[in-house]
Amino acid sequence: MCAVSTSRNSSGRQAPYHHGNLRVALVDAGLRLLVEGGQAGFSLREAARAVGVTVNASYRHFANKDALLAAIAAEGFRRFAAALAAGAAGGESPELRLLGAGRAYVEFARQNPALFRLMFGHFDAGAHGSELAAAANAANNVLRDGIATLLGQPADATAVSIAVLRAWSLAHGLSHLVMDGRIDANRPDYAAIVDGVLAGFRP
Amino acid sequence: MCAVSTSRNSSGRQAPYHHGNLRVALVDAGLRLLVEGGQAGFSLREAARAVGVTVNASYRHFANKDALLAAIAAEGFRRFAAALAAGAAGGESPELRLLGAGRAYVEFARQNPALFRLMFGHFDAGAHGSELAAAANAANNVLRDGIATLLGQPADATAVSIAVLRAWSLAHGLSHLVMDGRIDANRPDYAAIVDGVLAGFRP
Repeated sequence: MCAVSTSRNSSGRQAPYHHGNLRVALVDAGLRLLVEGGQAGFSLREAARAVGVTVNASYRHFANKDALLAAIAAEGFRRFAAALAAGAAGGESPELRLLGAGRAYVEFARQNPALFRLMFGHFDAGAHGSELAAAANAANNVLRDGIATLLGQPADATAVSIAVLRAWSLAHGLSHLVMDGRIDANRPDYAAIVDGVLAGFRP
Repeated sequence: MCAVSTSRNSSGRQAPYHHGNLRVALVDAGLRLLVEGGQAGFSLREAARAVGVTVNASYRHFANKDALLAAIAAEGFRRFAAALAAGAAGGESPELRLLGAGRAYVEFARQNPALFRLMFGHFDAGAHGSELAAAANAANNVLRDGIATLLGQPADATAVSIAVLRAWSLAHGLSHLVMDGRIDANRPDYAAIVDGVLAGFRP
């Protein structure tokens, strides 16, 4: 499989895309469009134009706008999982690792509100549903592993699940309050507020 | 002040609106439109048509679409505050009253997702900003009073504020996870999950 689309990019040169390259380029361009304009004006045609291919060439990878949005959301969850893992890394106790992941959660939402809303929003992922679910689960597992460690073994599965939902709700709600301006990220005690809210988590 | 707009309502009869009546009718109609179609297709013109007045008549109360949205959001916060207070009422301890308010928070979001998203979303409330802020504060105070009681007197003001943000984040995040289908409200243990997540709150 090595389909190549020839296209004219923004500098006017012929730019060939290998099958995989074009897919990645469309996801990257879609992500930029989403960040700039949100979901309202988003279209597969616009993403294709930004990459410099026809919308017909983009159909080889994405059946429609929702399919591209699903691929962007999956890429978002992969970055999100990496951010949570990086936030947790180096913490000297299970509590501090979970706090680090929580800080990273809120920071990701604050820096990528359009992507964050897409990731958790509604759209028909269709054929991309399994890729999206796998990426979302990987992010969820960072929280789940942290909480299972915190609770120690053997932990009751229901207790772990409820604790994961509690940690998730806490970080998710705080993220929304920050994204929606209910908590001002520019106030001098912002970091202390985020830590104070998250540090009160009990599994 | 007793401005009257004469209008033809949907049944074809002349329906006079007193100043205050038309305002209330526009808010009610706007709320119905919002529930049916979300914010995307929402317009002042459409709300005026639903009430049976010209858009010019509606301008006497609302300068534009955002002004009507602000009035709807304020009405939403008044209903929300009443729901939280009703949820808290009758609880036999400060913990149970706060849990009752938390349950009511999530249930309000589940039953009124479009209104809930509007209330916490972004728009230019303009001249209606103070009405909206007062209504939002009244809802917030239900949580604040419950937590101040829980912490007992004298409670440190910063500790109360952080605890309020923590309770708010927890209920708000859980609400979003339910609205976005991350937690299935139709599963048989749904109420137990909501209670389990909320009951882990520590001030």
